[in-house]
Amino acid sequence: MERKKIAIVGVGLIGGSLALQLNEKGIAAGLVGVEASESHAKRALELGLVDAILPLDEAIAASEAIILAVPVDQMTGMLRGILDKVTNQVVFDAGSTKEQLVELIRDHPKRGRFVATHPMWGTEYSGPQAAVKQAFENKAVVICNAKDSDADAIEWVKKLYEKIGMRLLEMEASAHDLHAAYVSHISHITSFALANTVLEKEREDRAIFEMASAGFESTVRLAKSNPSMWVPIFRQNRDNVLDVLNEHISQLRKFKSCLEKENYEYLQELIENANKIRRIIK
Amino acid sequence: MERKKIAIVGVGLIGGSLALQLNEKGIAAGLVGVEASESHAKRALELGLVDAILPLDEAIAASEAIILAVPVDQMTGMLRGILDKVTNQVVFDAGSTKEQLVELIRDHPKRGRFVATHPMWGTEYSGPQAAVKQAFENKAVVICNAKDSDADAIEWVKKLYEKIGMRLLEMEASAHDLHAAYVSHISHITSFALANTVLEKEREDRAIFEMASAGFESTVRLAKSNPSMWVPIFRQNRDNVLDVLNEHISQLRKFKSCLEKENYEYLQELIENANKIRRIIK
Repeated sequence: MERKKIAIVGVGLIGGSLALQLNEKGIAAGLVGVEASESHAKRALELGLVDAILPLDEAIAASEAIILAVPVDQMTGMLRGILDKVTNQVVFDAGSTKEQLVELIRDHPKRGRFVATHPMWGTEYSGPQAAVKQAFENKAVVICNAKDSDADAIEWVKKLYEKIGMRLLEMEASAHDLHAAYVSHISHITSFALANTVLEKEREDRAIFEMASAGFESTVRLAKSNPSMWVPIFRQNRDNVLDVLNEHISQLRKFKSCLEKENYEYLQELIENANKIRRIIK
Repeated sequence: MERKKIAIVGVGLIGGSLALQLNEKGIAAGLVGVEASESHAKRALELGLVDAILPLDEAIAASEAIILAVPVDQMTGMLRGILDKVTNQVVFDAGSTKEQLVELIRDHPKRGRFVATHPMWGTEYSGPQAAVKQAFENKAVVICNAKDSDADAIEWVKKLYEKIGMRLLEMEASAHDLHAAYVSHISHITSFALANTVLEKEREDRAIFEMASAGFESTVRLAKSNPSMWVPIFRQNRDNVLDVLNEHISQLRKFKSCLEKENYEYLQELIENANKIRRIIK
């Protein structure tokens, strides 16, 4: 694939991990970062994630491709301004919500230069020091509303994701946001709520965590995730997240009802049904 | 520590994984299994987990220590009968609930031979083929109501758990069951309910799971757990699990209310509070 001079806006967990892959796979003819946080900028340079940190305008002017890896509220805040300054660069984002973003630039004269993507990878950590090698490999990346992007932009972005080992999925932005609510956003809410449930108890009884096991850690680890990233996601995907959260609460109420009524046959059925998840995650 | 001839009743995930450790650490002078499932018995022998499979009575007579690693309903079903046949053997269990079990044998003449324990380790898989090496290492084991056990029995069981790398905690059975509801049982319910939430949606739209990411897998993996093990746990620990489940639903309702009212400042606070779990799980 054609190597390009690339700018990554937001050199944190996602931007930093992408930088590592772009360097390793020889995709970047040069890699600069744009980073609002001074400490993150310093750290990104120390870690060799990018060659230089530049102001946004300079980075746009100096690049052939621009990757946006900032929290989704900043993404919607800056995308139109970036497209205003774009000549023929490819611009794509790596955010967790899509519908508001594509709506915002629907009639922008440079709409075709933008590709809306969501690489389905992340961890509960943030910042450039959280960047990991071989991230994204064997995970899915969703490309939304591909028909609104120029053919050369879509092709280049697809090749980039394939080269870093991702499986391509295409769908409308609205379908993406609904699905993301089910397979990612709700998991974070349950994890945050579970952490709060147990932390509430811990105020009375500190001994409780000495017993915490791997199962607990697994269900609660997402609760370490950064609110600066997640509040904007929940805000932009509010309607879908509320629908899934209501469904989840009603599923929990079934378990509650089984216990209250001592209906262990139905409890067995609920668990057997949940076991069908084995079909999907090995 | 003194090597003993050991019988493991229930050679599944827990019994099988204990067998591997007892063999590796040279704790057993001989290891027989008792296993109601013919296929599990066959598999346990093929895997070399135990030297022989014996009927329960023969296994008791032939052993100096008896480990109970069956679902907790079978545990309460068989413990008195086992103690009736015990002369001077050490008997201990590895079950996830404790209060009903110790209550059941409170006045048994052989109560002192029994040690109530819960090694805090498991996976979402079951059966002898799920047994893994180095299980239990660096995890906590809870020993309940130690004062009701004979000194030699407690000492030997403690040494066994220390030798397989576990951290010893002691508490009353009632405290154990309450804490286990918080750090283990509720995680399973949230995971089962999350699986059911998403599976319900999948009936309309199969594409959803192509997007499933590591975060989703982490929160939902416990949903693969066996109902034969978990229904009896929820049944025996019903009151505590209901309390924690009610608290968890009310924590989820706070997230719901934030989204409904678009109160993103409070949503931020809820997530910041959940982040405190970083203190506890690294």
